[in-house]
Amino acid sequence: MDIKRIAKATTQTLISYLTYQAVRVVIEQLKETDPPRSLWLHQFSTQERIQDGEGYLRDLMGSHKELALRIMTVRAHLAEEISEFLPEMLTTEIQAANAQHRRHYLERLTQLPLTGDPPDP
Amino acid sequence: MDIKRIAKATTQTLISYLTYQAVRVVIEQLKETDPPRSLWLHQFSTQERIQDGEGYLRDLMGSHKELALRIMTVRAHLAEEISEFLPEMLTTEIQAANAQHRRHYLERLTQLPLTGDPPDP
Repeated sequence: MDIKRIAKATTQTLISYLTYQAVRVVIEQLKETDPPRSLWLHQFSTQERIQDGEGYLRDLMGSHKELALRIMTVRAHLAEEISEFLPEMLTTEIQAANAQHRRHYLERLTQLPLTGDPPDP
Repeated sequence: MDIKRIAKATTQTLISYLTYQAVRVVIEQLKETDPPRSLWLHQFSTQERIQDGEGYLRDLMGSHKELALRIMTVRAHLAEEISEFLPEMLTTEIQAANAQHRRHYLERLTQLPLTGDPPDP
C-alpha cells in the first residue's frame, strides 16, 4: 500500500472538510453581524460547489473577495487549533470503533441459538 | 467557534475516509491473491454504503467477517502510519493553498484593463 499517496489524498480531503467547516463558522458569525450577507454566503455555498474546496474559494474570490479571505483565515486557524489533537484522537477513535465492531460481533454470536445436542450432565 | 465539536466531527470524517482507503487497499491486495473475492468486495462496497464507514463495517461483519476484520486492521495501520505526518502536512498545505488563492487574485487584478485616462507624460 502506498502510504505517501494515501497521506496526500487524506490531507486534501481534510482541507476540503475544514473549508466546509470554516464556511459554516463564517455563516454563523455573519448571522449576528450582517444577516443579508450571511444569507448570500449560505446560498452561494451549495453542496456541489463546496465539495471542491479550492474551486469554491476561487469562485468566491471572484464574487466576494473579503469573504473568501475570511474563510481562508478561519480554515488556517481551525487547522492549527485541531491538528495538535488529531493524531491521538484519530488512533484512539479508530481503536475504539474497531473494538466495538468486534464486541458487537461476539455478542451476536452468543445470542445465536445453540445447535446440536446439549452436553451431557 | 466550537473547536472541540469541529475536532470531533473532523476525526469522524477522517475515520470514514481512511475506511474507504482501507477498502481500496484490500480490494487491490485481493486482486492478486483471490480475484473472485476482490470482485465480491468491490461490488459490496458501493459509494452509498461506504459513506457511512461504521455502518459499512457492521454490514460487512455480518456478511464476511474476515474481510471486515482485515479492513479494520488496515485502517488502524493507515491511521498510525499517517497521523504522525498529518498535522504538518495539513498546516503546510493550507498555507500553500491560501497563498496561491491570494496570488491568483493579485495576478487577475493586474491583468484587468486600466480604467480612466492614462497619466500625463
